[in-house]
Amino acid sequence: MANLDPLFFPKSIAVIGASDRPLTIGHRIVSNLLQKGFVGRVTPVNPKGTSILGLRSAPSILDVDGEVDLAHVIVKNSLVPQVLHQCADKGVKVCIVNTSGFKEMGPDGARAERKLVDLARERGLRLFGPNCQGVMNTDPAVKLYSNFTFADMWPGHISMVCQGGGVAEVINNYFGMHRVGTRMYASNGNACDISIPEILQYYGDDDQCHAIVLHVESFADPAQFLELVRPVAAKKPILALKSGTTPEGARAVSSHTGGLMAADTVTDVIFDRCNILRFGSLAELCEAAEAFATQPIPRGNRLGMVTNAGSPAIIVTDEAVGAGLAVPDLAEESKGALRKELQAIASIANPIDMMATASGPEFSVSLRTLLDDPNMDAAVVCFMTPFFVDTLSIADAIVEQAKRTDKTLIAVAMTNPEGKPEWREAVDRVRGAGVPVYYFPASAARVLYHMDRFRRLRERPEAAPPDLRVDTRRAADILDRATPGPEGFIPPEDVSDLLAAYEIPAALEGRGESWDEIKEAAARVGYPVVLKAEAPTLIHKTEANAVALNITGEAQLRAAHDRLLASLGESHELSFLVQKYHARGVEVILGGVAAPDLGSMVMFGLGGVHVELFKDVLFGLAPLSSPEAETLIDGITAAPLLSGYRGAPPVDRTALVDLLLRVSRLLADHPRIWELDLNPVMLFPEGTRPAVVDARVKLGPPRGKAAGDGSARP
Amino acid sequence: MANLDPLFFPKSIAVIGASDRPLTIGHRIVSNLLQKGFVGRVTPVNPKGTSILGLRSAPSILDVDGEVDLAHVIVKNSLVPQVLHQCADKGVKVCIVNTSGFKEMGPDGARAERKLVDLARERGLRLFGPNCQGVMNTDPAVKLYSNFTFADMWPGHISMVCQGGGVAEVINNYFGMHRVGTRMYASNGNACDISIPEILQYYGDDDQCHAIVLHVESFADPAQFLELVRPVAAKKPILALKSGTTPEGARAVSSHTGGLMAADTVTDVIFDRCNILRFGSLAELCEAAEAFATQPIPRGNRLGMVTNAGSPAIIVTDEAVGAGLAVPDLAEESKGALRKELQAIASIANPIDMMATASGPEFSVSLRTLLDDPNMDAAVVCFMTPFFVDTLSIADAIVEQAKRTDKTLIAVAMTNPEGKPEWREAVDRVRGAGVPVYYFPASAARVLYHMDRFRRLRERPEAAPPDLRVDTRRAADILDRATPGPEGFIPPEDVSDLLAAYEIPAALEGRGESWDEIKEAAARVGYPVVLKAEAPTLIHKTEANAVALNITGEAQLRAAHDRLLASLGESHELSFLVQKYHARGVEVILGGVAAPDLGSMVMFGLGGVHVELFKDVLFGLAPLSSPEAETLIDGITAAPLLSGYRGAPPVDRTALVDLLLRVSRLLADHPRIWELDLNPVMLFPEGTRPAVVDARVKLGPPRGKAAGDGSARP
Repeated sequence: MANLDPLFFPKSIAVIGASDRPLTIGHRIVSNLLQKGFVGRVTPVNPKGTSILGLRSAPSILDVDGEVDLAHVIVKNSLVPQVLHQCADKGVKVCIVNTSGFKEMGPDGARAERKLVDLARERGLRLFGPNCQGVMNTDPAVKLYSNFTFADMWPGHISMVCQGGGVAEVINNYFGMHRVGTRMYASNGNACDISIPEILQYYGDDDQCHAIVLHVESFADPAQFLELVRPVAAKKPILALKSGTTPEGARAVSSHTGGLMAADTVTDVIFDRCNILRFGSLAELCEAAEAFATQPIPRGNRLGMVTNAGSPAIIVTDEAVGAGLAVPDLAEESKGALRKELQAIASIANPIDMMATASGPEFSVSLRTLLDDPNMDAAVVCFMTPFFVDTLSIADAIVEQAKRTDKTLIAVAMTNPEGKPEWREAVDRVRGAGVPVYYFPASAARVLYHMDRFRRLRERPEAAPPDLRVDTRRAADILDRATPGPEGFIPPEDVSDLLAAYEIPAALEGRGESWDEIKEAAARVGYPVVLKAEAPTLIHKTEANAVALNITGEAQLRAAHDRLLASLGESHELSFLVQKYHARGVEVILGGVAAPDLGSMVMFGLGGVHVELFKDVLFGLAPLSSPEAETLIDGITAAPLLSGYRGAPPVDRTALVDLLLRVSRLLADHPRIWELDLNPVMLFPEGTRPAVVDARVKLGPPRGKAAGDGSARP
Repeated sequence: MANLDPLFFPKSIAVIGASDRPLTIGHRIVSNLLQKGFVGRVTPVNPKGTSILGLRSAPSILDVDGEVDLAHVIVKNSLVPQVLHQCADKGVKVCIVNTSGFKEMGPDGARAERKLVDLARERGLRLFGPNCQGVMNTDPAVKLYSNFTFADMWPGHISMVCQGGGVAEVINNYFGMHRVGTRMYASNGNACDISIPEILQYYGDDDQCHAIVLHVESFADPAQFLELVRPVAAKKPILALKSGTTPEGARAVSSHTGGLMAADTVTDVIFDRCNILRFGSLAELCEAAEAFATQPIPRGNRLGMVTNAGSPAIIVTDEAVGAGLAVPDLAEESKGALRKELQAIASIANPIDMMATASGPEFSVSLRTLLDDPNMDAAVVCFMTPFFVDTLSIADAIVEQAKRTDKTLIAVAMTNPEGKPEWREAVDRVRGAGVPVYYFPASAARVLYHMDRFRRLRERPEAAPPDLRVDTRRAADILDRATPGPEGFIPPEDVSDLLAAYEIPAALEGRGESWDEIKEAAARVGYPVVLKAEAPTLIHKTEANAVALNITGEAQLRAAHDRLLASLGESHELSFLVQKYHARGVEVILGGVAAPDLGSMVMFGLGGVHVELFKDVLFGLAPLSSPEAETLIDGITAAPLLSGYRGAPPVDRTALVDLLLRVSRLLADHPRIWELDLNPVMLFPEGTRPAVVDARVKLGPPRGKAAGDGSARP
């Protein structure tokens, strides 16, 4: 792993392009470093050699005294290569290239940027940027604000890495405004060399970082991201926002599975595989980060509340219960203790409502009782700051309980800290004891919901995808010799063979074009059968009325054949598929979609006519482990249908897991499968194998073409 | 309508129970009135006659000089009646009874409270409270802070009424902290006399109130609420939070419809009928209120953006598109204009990204172009405050455009106003021009989503429930003579008759117990038929396997009868229902649930085995108007199934609307129907009437018992 110490713990920094004009970046970075009290040496570099903010400039980096770990490069973009060469000559370890005018400007800029990378690799220099803000580190050993923005920073344990500079600022300013402690910060712009996964790795190894905030807009290298970041997320929580989820420019899809994929499914699948906690709301992410950095993850989902105002605690309850948390009764011994200690008007329930007159002693006893209650995994303390109460005694009671508990404790301070010095002091004391503080009551419940979500992510059993008896070679051969139609679908016979190579149980079937062939196929399959008319031009067979079900004998078969021929034969070149007819099982859909640069995704969901309406499907990254397959199966809304719904027997679970594993293995082994639909798949009670009733396989564009023709998924 | 002028525009206030001790409510209210600059006269009333904050106390209210409009009552609860009598003697018009110890303490307190009301009615006095905070009014004619809390208040156009004092404080403090203008405030605690609907009426008639924030926990009188508040909501937006949505103590239900009802469906139905905009999040409500009070409702859902930082605008786009708003391309003429005026690196798209160096002139031209673009209904302007840009020029550009546009304009200021006086000034100038300002980018999109939701609410056609040919009298007779089973269900024959009285097309059917009776019924109905075994003890027939479908002749009927008798006859006392067998249509469910003190709710949704899994149902208040029925039909997720899904013909829409209207009329006319299930109802293509395949009706507890036995819904 790369050592980013020179970036985050530099002893000496040069600012190349420093200026004495206050409204320039070259001035601002020097002034920020000085104002935030950078512990090391700062040398402005400016050819005029003027004095900047009381520091003598060096005319060039080569003229700087002593070693330089880190250099800001703020010169014109055409001068950057020359400056980098000088930095290499000087022995600089990392350059933050703030200068813009590279990849973000189009192909010429991208070429210039690639040349920077080549230069840096050749000369043993690491690059951060270009077109970037910089880094920060609140560690008292450096006090580093190597960035041209300016935010309040309070030392703490949240480290941030953000692709978008604007979003980075929003996050950093939020923490500054709310006095939430942060540790390191990096916004690396075009990220030509030092990458987001590398920075995450560095944060992962930093003992003082307890939670990581991540913002990405795209994955430069999804496979590298998976490989490098997964071990980091196993060590500490990563809270992530991926923006740019709008399905602009999503390519046309022609399968059910493709149509069911949301624009941003790939991100979900990557984050899920890494145990990264994804957020839909940046505000919620920022709020949650404070708790993840300071509080333990609750051991369960049971929440208790203490409050001096009833109505806000009801809002916490609503939000918590709505998000799947439990708000259990207090244990009997807790109730007994509180009845003795609290005044009669207090409500001894969950929430414990002590009324507005409560001060330190009441908060102390209630909170202690709640935290010791065996029914609770986490506690929320809500307080207003009535003028007739010693607010600081409330704060001190919370601090005292925070020190002695190992359960999760969250505070809601419904006060304006700017309104009165005592209120500010109360909030600061609580936060100073490592208890996160929120303004809106629901925030506490949302944060606990996210912590619970994280607990469930973490508690999933780890397992490797199992070995399965499959004939990879035969499948590859089938794909090699298959001739896809104009839309890329391979012929139905090849689909059957392909599934057979992976022991995926498709319905027993035969084919024919002439009546005699069809009749023989039916005799071979055995009545009852299904007869399906097929043609490359016929995609949705049910809509086209191209299927006849439950044919019990030859006469019925003939009638069905004649009907299909009469209704479809003129507009399509038909052949016929004869399949074993199965009694109605539980209909599900399994599918797959290629995810370029990542592999393939496998999908599981409710089948039947409702699949497009309810989109009750989940995706995973192929190949799946058994626990991952189980997670997909249990995760759909219609999951109760599988486990014996309203008196029906449960479906054969083992067979379903096996089927999903085999499909995911097929997709993983053969990424040229662009889209795969097994729809419907009928599931039956234990002892009867699932039946793939219909299957379609589409191959992707030829290799090497995918990236350039605009058809690649993000 | 009651005139609440003495409450909100008092000329003279007495504080009965005023005190010279600073930590008392009686001191705080006097000090608040003085500090906020109350324009009228304040007289402390205290038997000791001491001077309080420089004001001489009167020994009693009767000793106060001149007229008194409003009196705070802060004496011991046992003394309240006597003080109220004195107030009446003095001619006081309204008393704010801050004193607690009434209804909130249990039955004794409730009795004492009822006596206060009787006293007040008798003596011509209006009461606000008891157990309450008070009122405020920022109107410069009064500058009234008649409340013992203390928040910053900025004059504006949002008026608030909150049931919960704690929530009231959270809302009020939020506006104060963010310098959002407010007008009137009321938190009336136990609300024994002056009610929330009355206060809402008063706000409705106040020209300076442009938006209303409402918090309720329960409806004292749902019917009164509907009657009084609906006309208010027609005049100005009401943004509401109802808390206490957790289904604690919800009574057991025995119908599908009851089971599908969320704990808080009644509130949804009341708010929907009133056009009140319900919020799930208090934070979002507070943010939205600022925009509703200052900006026009957009004429459509199309949103354009201007920004000086790309990544936050992407978040706005994600959130907007996810919430159903459109982010269209700029018109060609807009692009042309911007290409001429902006620098080359600007991105001329939606969002318009002018880069961080943009200042006033760029913001001005971009925003003007966007607001004039015929493709846009609303604009969001996002800005960071880079140190190298004149931030105030950005603010002034926004102010300038706000003045000339009649479209909706929202600002996102990604800055810490406390960081630098110029940043604070920029935010204040923008907000001062009536442009709402948010910190997080997604907030702007959420607010526009809520405005769009409100537009759609408002645009629904108004219509009265239609007259229908129904036999109300016959239905009442059937219900009178029906003998409900132990669970309250009335016999199937009565259900059929009841539906027939409202011309609700149930499947043609007959009944029998003996084989001969059954055989005759089948002959009368005509094959194919369905045979169903029935018994009061048999609730879910499908699960119990008590149904035989598509019986085409007598022999098959006999076999089915024998099978049902063999499998169920031992454990149940069976009778048999013979129904016309219908080909499979689109299965839906219609239902009804009594809502005590309000009437009845009618439900429509997707039927079949998936109904409990997906809960794809909607509720409305009976009786429905035609547009309301259409809204329910179009609102379910499965709505596409009804309008011709994947090649199927659309169902008979007119017949479905008529059916829903008739069911809603039946429920409205006969509130003793406690639960009603029509499940499934088969819908067919135009020309074929819907068929109610199964129906159950449950009667409620005897009149007068509902309220006391804990079985009433909230």
